[in-house]
Amino acid sequence: MNTPTDQTSAAKPVPLSRAALKPGLWSTPIKIRFGHCDPAGIVYTPRFFDIFNVAIEEWYGERLGISYYELIGPRRTGLGYVNAHGDFFQPVRMGETLDVAVDLERVGNASFALTLHAFLGDNEALRGRFTVVTTDLNQHRSKPIPDDLRAALLDYGKS
Amino acid sequence: MNTPTDQTSAAKPVPLSRAALKPGLWSTPIKIRFGHCDPAGIVYTPRFFDIFNVAIEEWYGERLGISYYELIGPRRTGLGYVNAHGDFFQPVRMGETLDVAVDLERVGNASFALTLHAFLGDNEALRGRFTVVTTDLNQHRSKPIPDDLRAALLDYGKS
Amino acid sequence: MNTPTDQTSAAKPVPLSRAALKPGLWSTPIKIRFGHCDPAGIVYTPRFFDIFNVAIEEWYGERLGISYYELIGPRRTGLGYVNAHGDFFQPVRMGETLDVAVDLERVGNASFALTLHAFLGDNEALRGRFTVVTTDLNQHRSKPIPDDLRAALLDYGKS
Amino acid sequence: MNTPTDQTSAAKPVPLSRAALKPGLWSTPIKIRFGHCDPAGIVYTPRFFDIFNVAIEEWYGERLGISYYELIGPRRTGLGYVNAHGDFFQPVRMGETLDVAVDLERVGNASFALTLHAFLGDNEALRGRFTVVTTDLNQHRSKPIPDDLRAALLDYGKS
Repeated sequence: MNTPTDQTSAAKPVPLSRAALKPGLWSTPIKIRFGHCDPAGIVYTPRFFDIFNVAIEEWYGERLGISYYELIGPRRTGLGYVNAHGDFFQPVRMGETLDVAVDLERVGNASFALTLHAFLGDNEALRGRFTVVTTDLNQHRSKPIPDDLRAALLDYGKS
Repeated sequence: MNTPTDQTSAAKPVPLSRAALKPGLWSTPIKIRFGHCDPAGIVYTPRFFDIFNVAIEEWYGERLGISYYELIGPRRTGLGYVNAHGDFFQPVRMGETLDVAVDLERVGNASFALTLHAFLGDNEALRGRFTVVTTDLNQHRSKPIPDDLRAALLDYGKS
Repeated sequence: MNTPTDQTSAAKPVPLSRAALKPGLWSTPIKIRFGHCDPAGIVYTPRFFDIFNVAIEEWYGERLGISYYELIGPRRTGLGYVNAHGDFFQPVRMGETLDVAVDLERVGNASFALTLHAFLGDNEALRGRFTVVTTDLNQHRSKPIPDDLRAALLDYGKS
Repeated sequence: MNTPTDQTSAAKPVPLSRAALKPGLWSTPIKIRFGHCDPAGIVYTPRFFDIFNVAIEEWYGERLGISYYELIGPRRTGLGYVNAHGDFFQPVRMGETLDVAVDLERVGNASFALTLHAFLGDNEALRGRFTVVTTDLNQHRSKPIPDDLRAALLDYGKS
């Protein structure tokens, strides 16, 4: 344990303005509900990861054209996370609507990386980063990204 | 977007064996429930952050001797996160019990950093990292860590 | 404890067809997400109550014209439940969209009763019943329904 | 819609004192966490149904001696609800511990009924009622209660 000065600020990423966001990214509005919020009156941090997951589910179906629910269900393709990260720039309150933009950072053989920028108006309120691995849900092991998903990801990456 | 080879492994942290964990850390058992799990039959990733928060709440009261609920409630001291990170090493299933150890990485003026190591038997199944900032819940701004909490943190850091 | 024959069917309410629903009721679509579902692959029952609450929140703002979030927040008016009931007619799966209709059953002095009919296509998949009590969130006791809310409820009841 | 006088009180069940509870019922303590609570500072009603489910899961394994997780998992036996009801007598706050007692009301061929009494100290704070149906999770239809579970239920019913 180190106790010198506060080092958070050094590593702390800077929130984007909407104008600074990479153009062409798909985004979806998500309204913050009473049940998302905690006794401090703001979104309970763990639920932001659920909110990010909803945005990602919607992105698969609406933008990539491949249903998340068919991938997980009939196609038995897991889309789990080996890591998940959130940076929280400002509190978010019930009744507010986030606009969540999805950026694709990297596509590998059996994994890809997403960054989600969630805006309140013109300001990025929080950011998520996820590394997704594709797995075979029957065998419970890693498998290459399915061809149609890979093609859709590479196409999105060009945007 | 980069598409060369898979770079996840490079950055991927290595799970600890129980024996390799720093001695003296406080830990608490948390049982995985049906409601934690998703259609893939394993814990839904966002709920791991809720599980980590339960471990942290328990650590304040049981190990530091300062009730999380009094800090947030009557003392109006926010203990929010500016960032939260999870690394997921293996799936966790309903009925299993995680043992979650809390390590204190750093204490600053108005923030501190925690790492949580969650074990299934002898293997670290997942790890969390959180930067906590202390805030005044009436004024909605950062404030220094309260003296009793700071003393308890520094004492824990010596362990 | 009684053990004669199975008595569930006797008391079991009959699901409505969409055509049999009282005309003029407000409804809202709610999409079922991965995180709503459990290892049996269907919505985890407790989360249906959260889904019902989202429908109710939306009904206040969109149909009654009074923000749920302002009532609870600045107006310090609690809209809690003294009871909540769900009847579950058929399983609901991720990716499906419920259409949730709100019916007002009764308006009292400091309480009112809602029935929610959630449809999958033409069939009622589940039904919720809630008795709401209005409370003063500062004093933590019951208070009469605010005048604007009462007027909006009575107006909706005529529909 | 009827608007005469307030009829809630008529139907409202009366909370039990601990002394009035049927003797011999199994119970389990459940601590209320920050993440259970809402901006009104008390447990968000839908999460009480999750809390009830945790108590029921624990009752299967600890008191009936049959793991809920094996029933749902390897044995592919669904234990879903055709209805769920909650009566909420007083607010419950973070840091408080409920003691949840399970009563078995009825055992049928392919269903049984549970009542849960949740106490804060000597007072019943809330009550849940659930009708459980046993289903075949492969065939997705009702099936008789498995023999070992039926025997355990009947034995518990004698307590």
